[in-house]
Order: sequence, then C-alpha cells, then structure tokens
Amino acid sequence: MSNAISPTRQENYPEWYQEVVKAAELAEHSPTRGSMVIKPWGYALWELMQKGLDGLIKETGHENVAMPTLLPLEFFEKEAEHVEGFAKETMVMTHYRLKLDDKGALIPDPESALEKPYVLRPTSELMFGHMYSKWVQSYRDLPILLNQWGSVFRWEMRTRLFLRTAEFIWQEGHTAHATEQEACDETSLMHQTYNTFLRDFLAVASIPGYKTPDELFPGAIHTLTLESMMQDKKALQAATSHYLGQNFAKASDIQFLDQNGDRQYAHTTSWGASTRMVGGLIMSHSDDDGLVLPPRVAPSQVVILPIYRKDEEREQVLAAANDLVKQLKASNAFGESVRVKIDDRDLRGGEKSWQAIKKGVPVRIEIGPRDLAKNQVCLARRDKGPKEKEFLAIDAAVTAIPAILEEMQANLLAASEARLEANTQFIEDLDSFKAFFENDGGFAVAYWSEAAIDHPILSELKVTPRCIPLEGQTEEEHTCIFSGEKTSTKVVFAKSY
Amino acid sequence: MSNAISPTRQENYPEWYQEVVKAAELAEHSPTRGSMVIKPWGYALWELMQKGLDGLIKETGHENVAMPTLLPLEFFEKEAEHVEGFAKETMVMTHYRLKLDDKGALIPDPESALEKPYVLRPTSELMFGHMYSKWVQSYRDLPILLNQWGSVFRWEMRTRLFLRTAEFIWQEGHTAHATEQEACDETSLMHQTYNTFLRDFLAVASIPGYKTPDELFPGAIHTLTLESMMQDKKALQAATSHYLGQNFAKASDIQFLDQNGDRQYAHTTSWGASTRMVGGLIMSHSDDDGLVLPPRVAPSQVVILPIYRKDEEREQVLAAANDLVKQLKASNAFGESVRVKIDDRDLRGGEKSWQAIKKGVPVRIEIGPRDLAKNQVCLARRDKGPKEKEFLAIDAAVTAIPAILEEMQANLLAASEARLEANTQFIEDLDSFKAFFENDGGFAVAYWSEAAIDHPILSELKVTPRCIPLEGQTEEEHTCIFSGEKTSTKVVFAKSY
Repeated sequence: MSNAISPTRQENYPEWYQEVVKAAELAEHSPTRGSMVIKPWGYALWELMQKGLDGLIKETGHENVAMPTLLPLEFFEKEAEHVEGFAKETMVMTHYRLKLDDKGALIPDPESALEKPYVLRPTSELMFGHMYSKWVQSYRDLPILLNQWGSVFRWEMRTRLFLRTAEFIWQEGHTAHATEQEACDETSLMHQTYNTFLRDFLAVASIPGYKTPDELFPGAIHTLTLESMMQDKKALQAATSHYLGQNFAKASDIQFLDQNGDRQYAHTTSWGASTRMVGGLIMSHSDDDGLVLPPRVAPSQVVILPIYRKDEEREQVLAAANDLVKQLKASNAFGESVRVKIDDRDLRGGEKSWQAIKKGVPVRIEIGPRDLAKNQVCLARRDKGPKEKEFLAIDAAVTAIPAILEEMQANLLAASEARLEANTQFIEDLDSFKAFFENDGGFAVAYWSEAAIDHPILSELKVTPRCIPLEGQTEEEHTCIFSGEKTSTKVVFAKSY
Repeated sequence: MSNAISPTRQENYPEWYQEVVKAAELAEHSPTRGSMVIKPWGYALWELMQKGLDGLIKETGHENVAMPTLLPLEFFEKEAEHVEGFAKETMVMTHYRLKLDDKGALIPDPESALEKPYVLRPTSELMFGHMYSKWVQSYRDLPILLNQWGSVFRWEMRTRLFLRTAEFIWQEGHTAHATEQEACDETSLMHQTYNTFLRDFLAVASIPGYKTPDELFPGAIHTLTLESMMQDKKALQAATSHYLGQNFAKASDIQFLDQNGDRQYAHTTSWGASTRMVGGLIMSHSDDDGLVLPPRVAPSQVVILPIYRKDEEREQVLAAANDLVKQLKASNAFGESVRVKIDDRDLRGGEKSWQAIKKGVPVRIEIGPRDLAKNQVCLARRDKGPKEKEFLAIDAAVTAIPAILEEMQANLLAASEARLEANTQFIEDLDSFKAFFENDGGFAVAYWSEAAIDHPILSELKVTPRCIPLEGQTEEEHTCIFSGEKTSTKVVFAKSY
C-alpha cells in the first residue's frame, strides 16, 4: 500500500519533513527571505502550545510583559561575548521614511537615515536589563520574574520551516535575583518546566543537561538544555535556560542595596522556547501518512465526517453530527472540553478522511444513514492504519473518545522515550565513536574533557556535544576519549538540527 | 480630601492620563524612540482584552495565522494611495550584520547592505494579498477569512503611551471574497463585532459610522469606524473596518475563476484594533484616584488584603483568605471563574489598599482577626469612595461579589452611554459650531457635503470629521453648514486623539 507522503522517512528524511509540513498545511515559505507564513492549522497548533507553556510559566510565578522589538544598537556594545555571538546575524533598521527616487523607484529616504540605528531584537537580555536597572533599587525589588512572547530576528543563511527561520516566534523569560543560588534555582526550575511541557503536552522525551562551554549562550555562565531525539536519531535542542551570573547585570548596571546596605550586582537568568518546538513535534511523531499530533495540542481532536447522498439524509446525518459535537464538547480530555469539528465541505469522503490523516487529527468519526439506523458511528484512529475502523454505539463512542485521546498521548510519549533509550549508547573509545556515527548513529555518551573541544573528528562526523546530562554522572575518574585527559564528565554527542 | 492622582482630570487632562498610567503601573517609555514597555498589570489587562476579542473573531469564522513582520519594500510600489499613506512613517531594515568600525564603534556592516531592503510592517494588506494570490484559484477557495496578532511599526513624531506609539500591538484581519456584497457584509460584520467587544468587554459606548473620504484608510473604498467619547469629550477612534474593493486584489493579483469560468479579481477587506483601545479604556472610566477597570477585563477582579499583627493571627487570617479565594474561584462572573488574588506583601494595609485603588481593582476585601471572630469580611468597591466600606458575612460576600462585578460593568457602560448622549449636539450653523468647540465641546452633528473637506474652520478649531453615523441619516435635503451646498448627509465632528 502506498503512503500519503512521498518520499517516506526511510527514503529521504529531510524531504519527508518538508512534505509533511506542506500536506498538513502547517506553514509555507513567504516572500520575505528566510521567513515563513504559519497557516491556520499550524497557528492553531502553536496557540495551544503557547497556551500550555504560558500556563506553566505563570504557575511558576512569572508575569508577561511587552518590550520593544527594536533595540538601540549601542546596547550591543555593552556585553562583548553577547555581541560577538549575535553580530553576524543581526538585522538593522536604519531609515524611517520612504521616497521615490529619480527613476520612480521606492527607496529609503536618505534624509531619514538614523544617526543611531536600531537592531531587530535577536534576543532581549539587554532591553530587559536596561529596564531592570531602572526598576531595581533594593533587595526588596527582587526577584523580578518576567516573560514575553514575541518575534525575534536572526539573519540565517540556510532556513527550514519551523526549524530555522530568519523570524521566529518565541517566549523569552528574563529574571533578576539577589543571589547566585536563587538565580541558579530559577534556571533549573524553568529547565524542569520546559521538560514538563515537552513531556506532558508534546509527548517528547529529552535528555536534560548542561551545555558544554563551546555551546553556551553568548554571555552565559551555564546553559541548561533539553535534547530530544528525532526519528532520524538526530538531536533537536528543544529549549534552553541560562544562568547569566552578573555579566548582564554589569553590562546593564542592575544594582541593588542588599540587607546590609551594600551595593551589589543582581544575578540574572534568561530562558526561551520557540516555534522550533513545532519542528521537533513533527519530527518526533509523524509517519509516512503525514502529521501525527499529540491529542493534547491537536487543534481538532476529533473530526466528524458526515456521509450522505440525498437531501433528507443530509439533514438527518447533520443533526446527529451536531448532537455528537454537543456530547463530545461536554466531555473532558486532559481537563478540557474535547475539541471537535464537523467537516461538511463538499468533497469526497475519502478525500476528507485523507486530509484529516495528513493533518494529524487524532480521531475520525464517520456517520452515515446506515450507521444512524443502527445508532452507531464508525471510529478511526490516527495511530492505526488509515483503513482500520471500528463500529461503536454512539454512547459508547462518546465515553471512549476522551480515554482514546489520553491513551494516544501516553503512547506517543512512551514511543519517544523508547526511541531515546534504544538509540542512546555508551561509547568507550574513538573508533567505536566513529563507527557509531558512520552507521546508524543516535546519541553517543562518552567521557569528555574540555580539551576535546574542536577535536577534528567532531566536525568530520558533523557531530556536536549536545549536553552534559544531569543524570548518570559520578566522581569516578576516567579518560576523555578525544584528548586522553583525565575526566569524570560524561557528555552526550549527536548530529543535530 | 485629596486624590491619589495629581493633577486631576479637571486640572490637566493630558497629564492626569500620564499619571494614571504611571500610578497603575500599566506601561512606561522605553529607550527605543516612541516605543513603550507594557508592564505586568498593563499586559495582563491586554491579554484579557485580546482573549475576549480573539474569541469574537473566531466565533465569526476567522482563523489566526502569522505572516512575516518584514515586507519586501517593492510591495509598496503596488498600490499608489497605500504607499502615499504610509511612506512618511515607514521604518526600513537595510542591513543584516554588525561590525566594529575603525574607532571600535559598532555599526551596520556596509557589506551587509541589502539590495532590496525590507519594511517593518505598518499594516499587512500587501503581504496577505501576496499569499492570497497564491492560494486563490477558483471561487471554491473563497472566502478566505484570516486574522493575525502582532506588532506594527509607524515612525510617529509625537507619541503617548498606548494612544500613539511607534510600535504597537494589534490584530489585523484580512479577508478575500468573490463578490462586493459579501465583502461589504464582512466589513460590517467586523465593525459590529468591534462594537460588541467595546460595549460588552470594555464598557465603552461609541458612535458607529463611515469615515468621510478625507479620513479613509489609504486605498480603501469605504472605512467603518467606532468613535468613542473620552471624559474630556474628545473622540477616540477605537477600531476600523475597511472595504478595499478590488484595489488591493489588483495590486496583489488575487484572481479567481468564477462559477461561469470567468477570471475575476477578488474583493478584499481589512479590519484592525490595537493597544490604543487600552488608552480609550483608561480615558473612558478612570477617575482622580487612578485607573478604573471594567471588571470583565480586570486582571484581578478581587484583591484580598489580610490584616494581622502577630504570627498566630497571620496563620489564621491567611487560612481564611485562602479559603475565600477557593470559594470565589468556584463562583462565576461573566461566565468565568472569579479572578482573585491575596496581597500578602510586607507593606502597610493603607498602602496596599491605595495601590489596589490606583490599579483599578474592582473589589477589595479586608480580613482581620476581629472580622474572623464575627465570621465577616470588610468589602470596598472601586466605584465608591476610597474609605467607604461594608461589612458582610463571608458567605454573603461570596454570593454578592459576582453580582457586584456585573453591576459595576453595567454601570460603567451606562455612564459611557450617558456621557456620549449628553455631549453630542446637533449644530445648525457655523457660528454655533464655532461656539460649541470654543466652549465645552463634545460631538457636534452637522450637515456636511464633500465640499466641506479642508474647510479652514476645522483646522482652526482642531476639529475633524469623525464619521458619517449609521443611524439618524435621512433622504431629506439640507444645507452643508460649511460649504452651503445641498446635502442630506450628517457628520459627527470632534476634537480627537
């Protein structure tokens, strides 16, 4: 039997990804270089993800704000590592007016050139820092726990829908604390919060850990990351949380009087997650028939496909469909009303069913006159074959659906966990490391020391250190497989997005 | 008794406005020219407004999408009126990299100058149009009913928090239809939807009408507007809905095959409402003690102020406060769980109470040990004097609060309606028109013909035509008070924000 998506994952994973995005109508390229248009189904998915993550961010005591998109360019002169990290991809706004030139073409009016241009924010540490320096006077003003949702801009040379785009939507949290301990606790708390979100909402398992020094956020003291494994066994960095020490507080002059009346610099953190997670979600769960959505974030968890030929059938079938919608909306999955839609478009039933499959709708319900005569519906699940169907009494279907949705969600997480476990391997020497990545690959765990940074084998294999996992570290002394130096640190390596 | 806000409305309305915004901690100026920082209380208010309006937009069949913030500059060459309307305030992104110059200063890298710069969207008709031209082939693809939430950018010379800023957050709906009738119906539907939102959520009354030709959106055939009256009797344009005819479809080449197989240009609409509405809300309801919030969009509808001296009192009082929170959350105002917070900060009770007043929290509840002994609480309302209080049994308070919130909401709308009615006057000649605006002013309704556009009296009085109201027009022939020409059209005039 042929599949809805061509090529298949096996045939060509990167192209399969593009085709899934297209077939599910999630997003497409825009006329603006490197930027995408997120289409209704993709944006509805993002809205549910955003709502879920926003809820967790607020539950942990944070409040949302909106800071300007444009940052004064001179801000970037304040933190050397930070500007080095971002200067190469920073978009700059230099003019504030258009005019027609001699040839009648529209150009930026040279007379509107700004003496001090603005940068389209690639991240907002320096803007939050500037405001915090005004808001913070004493230890009583701390901690400040703020977050913002918005677009950020990075001029990327090679872009892929959701995974890497010149503009993307994210949330960025920025907090300031009186002590290092508090700031580190915050960094960990948000790291755990992201893990909760990935597991409970997106059904994605990850390895939580610290970034190695060569992979730190520019200006950070330490960066916590979640590294998820896609179906091609490559890693996707799903979210990061940074302890910035006093670096940014010094750059932005965030000082406070402590309880002894001494002047101190605050300790700050930042943490972010973006539309990139949509890419991770797609590559974690989807199959050769298209998108597979964790039911908890599926814009429609159930689609009802009414079947009829004659007008009188239509009326009867639609009445039953509407009644079913009401009953399902009154039922509850994941603590919320079930999201259900009727697809009453004038298209062939098979066509509509395949569209629902490609879009990853978890449950399809067909209702026709013959079903109604038997007081039953025909139920199909996205996690079964496209032709597999089950007939259920209407009441039984209403009762079964919330449980089916929750079961599908749990199965997806279990599959993600199983994949991560099955394809993570402890590697004892450089030859095995090479062989591992020249064959099937996955996540390789190996002893590593800082002397291994920039070891040529890594760029040769296109492998990077993904993280120093939080779990499984001991004090035992071993040998770095790259440098031969003594170390007790294990690092996860992988090819990555 | 002195007021919390100085100056008062009477003394200096514009300064009073700034002080209310500041005292309520809604927003403040940012280091980016003309842009603001929306602070937690202001952003929580905006989130509730956004949620309410987004719900209405979805209920009327629209879906959300995300289009790029940056528009190719050449798009603006497509629609002459449109570019004329926006060219003077358009911000332009011209470079994509930073570098250090000879003197060690950070500058846009000249080598990264774009041949084709991008414009930071001042509005997105041309981007949606570009995508629609790809998505629309046949009448079956119509209508397209999309909306987006995001920031837009207009280089404004004189800015005021919320009312006019260089960057602001809004929603912009863009739809394409097969016929003029359908597009006009859509324009009206969204106009009505905005009016529903303003009335039901923001408790703001408006005059709905058409813009006069001199006040049209650049490129529109007609523009529908809602003109609200602030407490200083000036008008605020709260939201607009535009029928764009085939102008933008021609500019963007949105063509479709109709049912007869003929090629046609689509008819498009656009409609938007922004953070400006926050300014309108503030100026509609607030008083000399600070912000007054319609309870339906108040981030906290109730604040509980626990009062205690000793530790054992603290425990007892906080237990009671938490219990009250639970009971209130289980109760329901405006179809939602009541939003309630405990303010347990280490501040004097009077200070906390005044902060709640200045922030516009609708209901304050004080609980102390003496109240608990009597099983009562002390309730104060934002719409009564700051010292007015009422003692209520705890159960009675829980029952009363939802009704109080809904009553306050209704009273605010009634006051807004009454103000609009009391200060809208029919004016029969130019001398009375002049006298009206030289005295107290308000909304003046007068007969008007197109020949009156640019009449010097208008700029002299700083008055503009706000709209041709939908209601109250007849076919009767009268005389334009400005030009003496025959007309049957009545227009509302006012000073405006």
